[in-house]
Amino acid sequence: MTTNIFSKSLLDTGTNEVINPDTYFQNNLPPSTLPEDENKVKEFVNKHDKAGRRIVLVTSGGTTVPLENNTVRFLDNFSAGTRGATSAEYFLEIGYAVIFMHRQFSLQPYSRHYTHSTNCFLDFIELRNDGKIEVNSQYIPKMKSILEKYKKAKQDGTLLLINFVTVADYLFLLRSVTQIMRNLKENAMYYLAAAVSDFFIPSQKMVQHKIQSAEGGLTLTMDQVPKFLKPMVTNWVPEGFIVSFKLETDPSLLVDKSRQALTRYGHQIVIGNLLTTRKLEVTFITKDSELKIQLSEEEVNNDVEIESKIIPELVKRHDEWVKNT
Amino acid sequence: MTTNIFSKSLLDTGTNEVINPDTYFQNNLPPSTLPEDENKVKEFVNKHDKAGRRIVLVTSGGTTVPLENNTVRFLDNFSAGTRGATSAEYFLEIGYAVIFMHRQFSLQPYSRHYTHSTNCFLDFIELRNDGKIEVNSQYIPKMKSILEKYKKAKQDGTLLLINFVTVADYLFLLRSVTQIMRNLKENAMYYLAAAVSDFFIPSQKMVQHKIQSAEGGLTLTMDQVPKFLKPMVTNWVPEGFIVSFKLETDPSLLVDKSRQALTRYGHQIVIGNLLTTRKLEVTFITKDSELKIQLSEEEVNNDVEIESKIIPELVKRHDEWVKNT
Repeated sequence: MTTNIFSKSLLDTGTNEVINPDTYFQNNLPPSTLPEDENKVKEFVNKHDKAGRRIVLVTSGGTTVPLENNTVRFLDNFSAGTRGATSAEYFLEIGYAVIFMHRQFSLQPYSRHYTHSTNCFLDFIELRNDGKIEVNSQYIPKMKSILEKYKKAKQDGTLLLINFVTVADYLFLLRSVTQIMRNLKENAMYYLAAAVSDFFIPSQKMVQHKIQSAEGGLTLTMDQVPKFLKPMVTNWVPEGFIVSFKLETDPSLLVDKSRQALTRYGHQIVIGNLLTTRKLEVTFITKDSELKIQLSEEEVNNDVEIESKIIPELVKRHDEWVKNT
Repeated sequence: MTTNIFSKSLLDTGTNEVINPDTYFQNNLPPSTLPEDENKVKEFVNKHDKAGRRIVLVTSGGTTVPLENNTVRFLDNFSAGTRGATSAEYFLEIGYAVIFMHRQFSLQPYSRHYTHSTNCFLDFIELRNDGKIEVNSQYIPKMKSILEKYKKAKQDGTLLLINFVTVADYLFLLRSVTQIMRNLKENAMYYLAAAVSDFFIPSQKMVQHKIQSAEGGLTLTMDQVPKFLKPMVTNWVPEGFIVSFKLETDPSLLVDKSRQALTRYGHQIVIGNLLTTRKLEVTFITKDSELKIQLSEEEVNNDVEIESKIIPELVKRHDEWVKNT
């Protein structure tokens, strides 16, 4: 047994150099589905740009870091994708077209209300004598409202789903999608709600097969994932309206860490939130302001979702951004 | 950057000692829901034992290893829970009562056919003019068959769902459930399809808050999870019929590793499978036999599930086990 659980690899390497994004893209392989996804995004962006509709990129869910090339084990970030999936619904409702870039199998807009594990729809339906299958009447009011919004988004083609699994998939996809959206300039919003890994194992250093556990423990040494907000803000979409999230567990770090991120990358808003209270309270942090958005007890009791307050506030600020650019 | 990605912690500690299961249980905290789950299992086991029904414990999905006490990051094992959820359906169909011990949010029997992400049921239903919501006729035949089996299992009370997240949750739950099932002797089957972590970070060594990524990489040193099949076979349920799984990615290791596990723990069957072909082919390995079970091309084209062949073969062997004990 060892007592040295977490040690910065500085100790091992004598350097704190973090590779730059270009090097990252040179040294890692893009996902095989990238060209196909790029085509879908191009078509989607062209269509809605012509129609004069604003477009938002919503990223959602956690990225994985595989420990083996034939992956059995991986490092993951806690995220069911609730924030992203919920937010996407409110963006659609307000008239935005949404590119929903999410972790495979994480929650999606609309279907999130009926996941296979928490609200299994097999409990909501019944076989009738005439052989038809019908939704029980007590579930109809809520389902009707969700179903109508879902069918409208499908009919209008305002929701595009693309997905990722690993942090490499995510980064390649993010670069491609933002570069396609670049021409939208200030009309595009980027709502980065995905929980992106901070550490990774470069694929050329990864073992091929499942790690064997014959004897003793295991030591993993990981490199830091380059901070992609920097090139995104500076080069990929310099005119876009960019919103990032900061999730912490320690309340005393939250505002400082959020402000640091804003200063370092120079984008428009950081939304700070704590693991334990993230569905009840968030803080909007900009260069010169701080706004707390909370749910009242009454709102909590009425199942109001905090995203129903976050999105309109963001859209208001996006309006101002468009006017002032 | 370091080139030393994977090194056995032997190097760090000078020992290859793996803690024994008793020490593990002394040093880790049980999940808070354990007493509640134990009560459910006791009631379920009593009821079906009285009814003369055989009971199988099916474990399913991957366990996590949190890296922080307030968990943002964790290590996970690749598993959607397909094997376990599918197998549970065939056990139910053949007349067993099933304790389905699964990773929270992983696939479940019956609802697995309609997950929120791959077969969203919002695509299958329509709002009628009279305000009712109905399943479209082309989806009825398949859904009818699933729905009927699902309702029957609910009505008969033959399916009990309990869940885990971390490897510690899993191990405490496994010990409790098997000890409750112990009195069933040879009539109980244990079908261990969950993908259990091999490495963990003892909670007393874990950091409290989210690891900060200010500079450089990260080194994680993990202890080996004790092998719980040993006390399970020897002490917890020595008369039970125990089936474990061995997943490998390297075909050349599969049979040897499976046979090693069988020799080491002394249980009845290891089912060996490869990551890439696990839905098409498995190998049953016993002390003195080896049986390959495969799907033909025709069966694959007809959507036959390999579990429809695995479970009847296991039940046949369980029958023999009961007769010969």
